[in-house]
Amino acid sequence: MSDDPRVEIYTKTDCPYCEKAKDLFDAKGVDYVTYNVTGDEERFAEMKERANGRETAPEVFIDDELIGGWDDTSALDATGELDEKLGIADESDDDVVEHRPLIITGTGIAALTAGIYAARSDNDPLLFEGDEPGGQLTLTSEVDNYPGFPEGINGSELVNDMKEQAKRFGAELEHGIVASVDDDVRPFRVTLENGDVYTADAVIAASGASARTLGIPGEDELMGYGVSTCATCDGAFFRGEDMVVVGGGDAAAEEAVFLTKFAETVYLVHRRDELRAEDYWEDRVQEHVESGDIEVLWNTEATEVHGSPQDGVDSVDLVYHPEGHPTAKLDDGQTEERTLDVGAFFVAIGHTPNTSYLEETEVELDDEGYLRTRGGHGAGQTATDVEGIFGAGDVVDFHYQQAVTAAGMGSKAALDADEYLEGALPEATGEAEGSAEAPADD
Amino acid sequence: MSDDPRVEIYTKTDCPYCEKAKDLFDAKGVDYVTYNVTGDEERFAEMKERANGRETAPEVFIDDELIGGWDDTSALDATGELDEKLGIADESDDDVVEHRPLIITGTGIAALTAGIYAARSDNDPLLFEGDEPGGQLTLTSEVDNYPGFPEGINGSELVNDMKEQAKRFGAELEHGIVASVDDDVRPFRVTLENGDVYTADAVIAASGASARTLGIPGEDELMGYGVSTCATCDGAFFRGEDMVVVGGGDAAAEEAVFLTKFAETVYLVHRRDELRAEDYWEDRVQEHVESGDIEVLWNTEATEVHGSPQDGVDSVDLVYHPEGHPTAKLDDGQTEERTLDVGAFFVAIGHTPNTSYLEETEVELDDEGYLRTRGGHGAGQTATDVEGIFGAGDVVDFHYQQAVTAAGMGSKAALDADEYLEGALPEATGEAEGSAEAPADD
Repeated sequence: MSDDPRVEIYTKTDCPYCEKAKDLFDAKGVDYVTYNVTGDEERFAEMKERANGRETAPEVFIDDELIGGWDDTSALDATGELDEKLGIADESDDDVVEHRPLIITGTGIAALTAGIYAARSDNDPLLFEGDEPGGQLTLTSEVDNYPGFPEGINGSELVNDMKEQAKRFGAELEHGIVASVDDDVRPFRVTLENGDVYTADAVIAASGASARTLGIPGEDELMGYGVSTCATCDGAFFRGEDMVVVGGGDAAAEEAVFLTKFAETVYLVHRRDELRAEDYWEDRVQEHVESGDIEVLWNTEATEVHGSPQDGVDSVDLVYHPEGHPTAKLDDGQTEERTLDVGAFFVAIGHTPNTSYLEETEVELDDEGYLRTRGGHGAGQTATDVEGIFGAGDVVDFHYQQAVTAAGMGSKAALDADEYLEGALPEATGEAEGSAEAPADD
Repeated sequence: MSDDPRVEIYTKTDCPYCEKAKDLFDAKGVDYVTYNVTGDEERFAEMKERANGRETAPEVFIDDELIGGWDDTSALDATGELDEKLGIADESDDDVVEHRPLIITGTGIAALTAGIYAARSDNDPLLFEGDEPGGQLTLTSEVDNYPGFPEGINGSELVNDMKEQAKRFGAELEHGIVASVDDDVRPFRVTLENGDVYTADAVIAASGASARTLGIPGEDELMGYGVSTCATCDGAFFRGEDMVVVGGGDAAAEEAVFLTKFAETVYLVHRRDELRAEDYWEDRVQEHVESGDIEVLWNTEATEVHGSPQDGVDSVDLVYHPEGHPTAKLDDGQTEERTLDVGAFFVAIGHTPNTSYLEETEVELDDEGYLRTRGGHGAGQTATDVEGIFGAGDVVDFHYQQAVTAAGMGSKAALDADEYLEGALPEATGEAEGSAEAPADD
């Protein structure tokens, strides 16, 4: 291709989103240059100027046009506009790009485990990465509780190892965000946000959930370095330190209680003057307040997290207003600001399951969007209401949400899908394209 | 101790049961000498003579008395007789040896994962090893489908790594076989086969299932080296080879069908003239018979497996009788013997869950002895009918039975148990012994 676009990426050391940006362009086969601004004040000033004052990495430019950070780049890719800017847009019409026995949405732990099993079962799986390639675990610096690694393992490294394992057996991973699944036809039609259409005899939804974050300065930069969305994963790293938990629901209460095992004091930061948690969890919090392990900071919000990837979290800026929701009242005379020295900052304001592409199907979603699977005992635990669509990982599991529980479900989904494919396609999986209406007979 | 007993163990190279025997004496702190008979004909003849003609390793002797192989040694240990022979029997009375917040039965994948999580939750777990320390995975030479190891990992190595990980966080493993759990009292009373009594606020049953085997020569020796009880685990290692599957039920039919993906021909060896499998699986087998992938050897039994740990399985001896059950009719003139060259030998005659110690409790067991857990969505999926008793791994799962699914359930059980313990014991876990009647309040 002549006139290759000039792609520039400003990066920082130890920056998972910078890696994601580079991986995206790698996957597209597009060359780029990187500028590491860590410890390079001149480069940092240059980036800040070109990025209209933004101080976060990555910052991506195409032919001198500011694309933005990872979120911006990924969003632009989802619509196909990024490919247009890069001059590699697919000009084909709506024709089906490819048929597969099995398509898996996601490349987190559940999806990759399903990929390993499905590839070993010769079901030729294709995985679509979505907008958080590798899933939530890539945001955790060290995983200590995934069984098999006595000394712990870096989250991204574990995900990459699983990718290699899935690829070794023949699974394919492609960048792409699934926009919809059409379950009125067989094979299913899987449409990406860029318009590409694939067909599949079976689909495993393993697209995960995204932890909600506050969007305050320091939060993204220190994610995995003292800022975390998972107390169970990371609490033990900060034994003996003061910790902040932000939130007022079940998850925040549960995380605050859990963290009392490790923390000197847990500060539960909530923007209102009462929790929205179950009585059970409110009682547990109250007990720990009485014993001095938890201090609840009512009507308080966090506005900035301070620290560095090297030394972790140092402190957090808080604002308080006696009537709550202080960040909406920063100019009010009653609003007070303070800084609290803490060693860890947990955000527990909920997760959103990534299931919007399933909303038009007959698959049952609960009120929060989580996928309902059959459960129970024996075969078919990961089956949904739609024969041939299975679910695994955090897209289903709103409670345990551990890497190893996601992996376990991913394995089950691939085994269930294999049984379904053997039943629906008795001759041979590869010759299935003609037998569109063949029902499962079990 | 004066007059230490003289313990001798004849071993072979690459012999998992020899390792189990050595581990047992190591755990007891008893010194022993080993004689490796691999490639040492003189030692082998000596062992055979001392062991009354037996040719399998290990063979254990205490003060020149033949104890026998691993099964014999383990059985003697279960009753306490081994400790008596070693002069280390515990002479204490029925008093409780120790109280723990959490006791876990088993040290397979599910139990160890529960141990990792429970230790990290400061629930001070004690794991009893049972008579198959490390569980079924220790019988698999290479595990290719446990996510996180792109090049695969040796089964025993994976188990040992998980042991180290659980110990690192404070879990304790002890040799002992749980004989019964008394759920009429709180804390639960957990009695070992040697008579020792422990108490626990919560119990996780993760004692696994044992694959039934045929008990024919060559089967034990080549287990993990071409002989396997798990097609899903090991089928892909023998791509392109002829394989035998022994059995006539669902599992045998399913494994035979699964193995057609890899095998040149699958020989399904069944001692009767019809399968006992579901119609669904009989239909699938029939389809593959018609396409030439499966050949069913009716009224046939295997009598010996030939091969070596170095080169795997070479062949299997079979007997046939037109009216079935040929090994009961070896002297009948109609019985025919033959030898079949194959590269792998899968035994699929079922599993037995290790739940006999729960039979006197209110925990629901199904007809085959599998533990029934609550399942469903959200918290408490691993709960049983008895508050405070949880189940995980192959003791529950009669279908998927994968290392990673067991690990996932182990994690859930520990998280469920932690919630239970937080609820039942709100003050502090360690002070729980007095609050025997405290119910869970969630």
